[in-house]
Order: sequence, then C-alpha cells, then structure tokens
Amino acid sequence: MPSPAHRFLILADGQFDPLTSKTANSCIRYFPERIVAVLDRTQAGKTVAEVLGYGGTIPVVGDFAAGMRSGAGATAVLVGIAPPGGQLPAEWRGWLRQAIEAGLELWSGLHTFIGDDFELGSLARARGVRIFDARRPPPDLPVADGRAAEVGALVVLAVGSDCNVGKMTAQLQLRDALRARGHRVSFAATGQTGIFIEGWGIAVDAVVADFIAGAAEQLVMRAAVDHDIVLVEGQGSLVHPGYSGVTLGLLHGSCPGAMLLCHQPSREWIGDYHGREPWLRIPPLADLVELYERAAAPVRPSRVIGISLNTFDLTETAAREAVARAQEETGLPATDPVRFDPLPLVSAIEDAAAQAA
Amino acid sequence: MPSPAHRFLILADGQFDPLTSKTANSCIRYFPERIVAVLDRTQAGKTVAEVLGYGGTIPVVGDFAAGMRSGAGATAVLVGIAPPGGQLPAEWRGWLRQAIEAGLELWSGLHTFIGDDFELGSLARARGVRIFDARRPPPDLPVADGRAAEVGALVVLAVGSDCNVGKMTAQLQLRDALRARGHRVSFAATGQTGIFIEGWGIAVDAVVADFIAGAAEQLVMRAAVDHDIVLVEGQGSLVHPGYSGVTLGLLHGSCPGAMLLCHQPSREWIGDYHGREPWLRIPPLADLVELYERAAAPVRPSRVIGISLNTFDLTETAAREAVARAQEETGLPATDPVRFDPLPLVSAIEDAAAQAA
Repeated sequence: MPSPAHRFLILADGQFDPLTSKTANSCIRYFPERIVAVLDRTQAGKTVAEVLGYGGTIPVVGDFAAGMRSGAGATAVLVGIAPPGGQLPAEWRGWLRQAIEAGLELWSGLHTFIGDDFELGSLARARGVRIFDARRPPPDLPVADGRAAEVGALVVLAVGSDCNVGKMTAQLQLRDALRARGHRVSFAATGQTGIFIEGWGIAVDAVVADFIAGAAEQLVMRAAVDHDIVLVEGQGSLVHPGYSGVTLGLLHGSCPGAMLLCHQPSREWIGDYHGREPWLRIPPLADLVELYERAAAPVRPSRVIGISLNTFDLTETAAREAVARAQEETGLPATDPVRFDPLPLVSAIEDAAAQAA
Repeated sequence: MPSPAHRFLILADGQFDPLTSKTANSCIRYFPERIVAVLDRTQAGKTVAEVLGYGGTIPVVGDFAAGMRSGAGATAVLVGIAPPGGQLPAEWRGWLRQAIEAGLELWSGLHTFIGDDFELGSLARARGVRIFDARRPPPDLPVADGRAAEVGALVVLAVGSDCNVGKMTAQLQLRDALRARGHRVSFAATGQTGIFIEGWGIAVDAVVADFIAGAAEQLVMRAAVDHDIVLVEGQGSLVHPGYSGVTLGLLHGSCPGAMLLCHQPSREWIGDYHGREPWLRIPPLADLVELYERAAAPVRPSRVIGISLNTFDLTETAAREAVARAQEETGLPATDPVRFDPLPLVSAIEDAAAQAA
C-alpha cells in the first residue's frame, strides 16, 4: 500500500488536456489540494483551471526540478498519462531518476511496471524509495466462485456503453452524495486512477485473465466489511471488442445486486480505436440494459436501476434533453451526477438497498 | 517455439486417471507414439490403456529415472497435471532437476512458469536446456479491434456449457475429419494442452486481462493464413462465474463466423468448484445457444451451427438418446464426434463455409 498523504507533482508532458490525460485529470478533480504542480512543457505558465476548467491555480510547469519544488514541495511523482508508444521515453527516465534521487515516491498506473525497470527499480531499492505500481496484481488471486453474492451490503456495479464514459466519476459522485445522506458506503476501485484516488483496489484489467472475476470478488468482499453499500468502479463495456472480457469477468465476479448504466450521449460509435475508423455503433440504451441483465442472470440476476450520463460536451439544454430522452427510452431514472443533481440515482440506490435489506 | 518431435516422459504422479490428468490424457490421445512412459507411483506397473481405456501399452512407471530410459528414451518431460496446492512439490523439483541434468527439455502448462523458477531456470540456462512454458504469453499483444472478422477463412469457435466438457477434443476430431475430406483446415490452440498438441498457440487464460481478445485475434489472423477453415479451441463458458471473462474475450477477439456448442449431457451443474457445493445449474441448451448468439452480436453476429456432446460416461443407448434430445431441443445437428460419426457437425461446417465463401 502507498503512503496515505502525499503532495504530488503530476507528469503529463505533452498530453495535458481535458480528454487525453484522464488519470491526471481525475486525480486533480478528486484531490486538488494534494497536487503541487503538473509538468507539461507545451502548456507551461498556465494554471490547471485554464487547461481543464477546474483545478484552480495549480501551476503547469515546464521544468521538472521546478515542479518538484512547487508549493510546499512534492513528496511524490504521479504518472498522469501513458507514454506515447508504451515505452518510457528517455526524458521520462531522466525525470524519474531525478525524483528517486530526491527521495520522492513514484506512483504509476502503467501496464509496464516501473518497479521492474532494471535501472529505476534498482535505484529506488538502493535509495529506499517506494515505487507504487498501481496496476500490479496482488499475489494469489482466487478463481471466483460467486461468493460476492453473499455479502450483506448492496453491491452496485457501474457498467457502460463504452470505455471512458464516466463510470468511475459517476460512482465517486454517488459515493459522496450517499455519504452526505448518512450511508455507510465504500468505493471499490478496479482501475489505476480509482486506486490512486481511493488508496487501494485492484486493476482488474491487469490481472491474469483466469483471475479477473476472482479479483473482483476479493475486492467486493473487502469493500463490504462495515459498509451497507459498495459502489464498484466499472471497466470497459460488454460491446467493446477489445475489453469485453474484463467487463464480463468484473460483472460475474462482483455479483452486483444492482447496476448503473453509464453513457456519453454525444458518442455514437465505440471509441478508443485510434488506428482505425470507428465501425461499431453503440446500441440503444434499452438494448444495453437488456444485454447487461441477460449477461448477469446466469450467475446472479441483477437489474439496471438507473442511467448515468456524461454530458460534459453538451450545452445545458442539450444535456437536459439527453437526460429526459434516456429516461424515456429506458423507463429508468437518469441524470448527469457531475453536472446536475445526483438525487435520481441516489434514490434508486437507496430503494435497491432497502429492498435488499 | 518448442522442438517439433520429442519423445516424452509424462509427469502425472498421484493423479493419473480418466478425469484428473486432463493434459496428460489429451496428449496421450493425440500423440501416443511420442510418449515413452507416464510417471505415477500409485499406478506403477499398469499400462496406460488399463488406466484410461486408450493409449495402448505405454507403461506407467514409479521411478523417474526408469521413465526417462523407457522405450527409445525420453528427450523431454511433459508436466501432465497441476501440482496439488499450486507450488512445485519438493519431489517434482528433484525430478525436474534430474531431467535438466540429463539434457531433457521441459514442457509445462502450469500458470507458474518453470523457466522463472530461480533454481530450475538457472540450471536450465547453465545446461543449455530449453524450458517450454506453454502458458507464457507472447510479448506485445495488441488490444483487439475486430479485424479477425476480415480473414478469408471461415472461423469456427467452440463454446461450452461449462469448463472441461470437450471443446478442444471436439475441434481436433473435426479437424481430422475435415482434413480427410480435403479441406485446408487449421486448429488455433488457446490453452496449454492444445498448444502441446499443435506445437503453437496462445493460452488466452494466461494473458493480462486487457489482451484476451487481442491474443485471440492474433491467433486467428495467423491460423487463417493458407487455410479455408479455422477451428478455434474454446475456453470456459459464458455462464461460468470464474472464467466467463476469458470466454467473452475469446468470442469477441476471434470474431467467429460460426459457433459449435459443446456440452456433457450427464452434467447438470457448473463444475470445477472443489471447495464448494455446486450451486449453479447449467441452463438448457436452447438458452445457451441464444446467450452465445446475443453475446456475439454486438461485435460480429454469429450463429451456433451444431451441438457437440461428450458422452464418455453414458451407455451407448443413453448417449444416442442424448444426441437425439439435443437435436430436438435446439433444432441443430448434434453428435458426439469422438464416439459417433462426426459427419453431422462436419456437414454443418461445410455448409457454413460454402455460405461464407
């Protein structure tokens, strides 16, 4: 487990913007007070708010050493983007070496573990500096056997029409709203960004395939202790040709008592295919509801209880229309829990919890 | 890639029987001429046929060194079972050391790679002996993007009601029958035993979860070269709480033009839960057909074209009744391609290939 309360310099060089630097942006949204600076040489001199529309006066810097000294001084470096091409660029390597030599912890959610890098791993061990590779799976994961269905808490899984439609953000907004109403609610992080925010979790997309559901089961069992509601971060989509296996493993392993369907209304095609023209149309919401309920049923029957929309790229009028349309198409409560009142989804979860109890 | 033509000593100590030693048994079924002996101290002195009902006079031995000298002498040791508890027992370690010291290649399909074992890996490198860990994923797997749908060959995926119902065996029987009728057909191995038999493949249950479908896609692209029909080994089941993620990833990554549903008629409950009472009933065959077709549809629509039954534990009368019942319940051709004529499924594949061409 990582140390609990760092002050972070976020590495987002060349990619800091509202769409690309997803990990950086979510960390800024959920713990801005712990971020001293963002490194992006192409945007140096701006504030984070000037780039993202939130995040206040956190500075964007162009010099790594200056970034480490920003504010009260960084105690850790958080890798907020994936390097283009997958390999660590030589410059990153230099920065990370600099950070380790200064005694800063490294937080990374990359598929390639920085702790396993010969040079950086050895240096960190020699200096006694911790490298937190958030995607590294825990040892000895079980094969799932459906026991997550037996926890006392109501387990709510976020499912989606596609990747990157706001499943994690929806759950975090609902967690806060449910907590404010006095519920004992936990957030089970299943991806690197969720793990950074929550401090623990398992990146289910990084475990060996046989153990996807086992990882989800272990997460839910732990998150349910002393809580009445467990909100599980979703991953991918059952209709995503690359990631659907992770999605179904997470669904069958977490055995949710209820599901929330997340969608970005402006999106018509399955995304995330940078090398190829889009070719898979996202099915209508009502079809997606049916698909998820049918997929869940053989292991544990579960219903979709609400629709969470991500309308950040729509005008307010268009966003309100999208919410009304989603409700009409599915007969389910809908809202954008970031932009509008999360109450329709909060109430749906409260009702499901009351029925389950 | 492993060397092509070894003579194997199979390690199956304490577990050599028709049900438990699945890897050993399949290797014996498909290349008996390359097996010099099976090590199982509890059955020493018997022939393989006395234990399995096939495999002829291959001896079961109780002494490892004697096993290595059997017949024309072993050139490789094949690990045919999983060790109880997952760790290499001390005795196995001694045997494998002995094998390496004698210059024998090691073939293993365990989740834990023998090549990464400090002692055995170092010894093998020092002696120039190859360790073939069949489950080790290839580097640089892609995220799937549906391009397996574009190959010229008809891709047929075996899907199942559960794990271990005969998906691999069905495809191998059909491969042989289709070859005998002059088709250019390849078998795409997706598990360790299939890889042992075919000599290449990717164990899709052992890749990092994000790359299940990518691994399946890469396999199909390669298996389709110079072939008109690709038979893809199936894995798990969409209704298996532990392994469904692998199954869906394989389905969406391989983009089959047709599916074969495999089932063991004597099985009523999802198995493979040794630590727990069975609690999930296998759905009716017609429901499974619909479930697989609905799951495939969003990425690439595909139909189940036949039912392959594994009736090894039924009387002949009961087996013929099971075949007739499967046909009646689904309206699809059915057979047990090991026990009876595979023609109903062969014809179904030929028809699908003719329609696709």
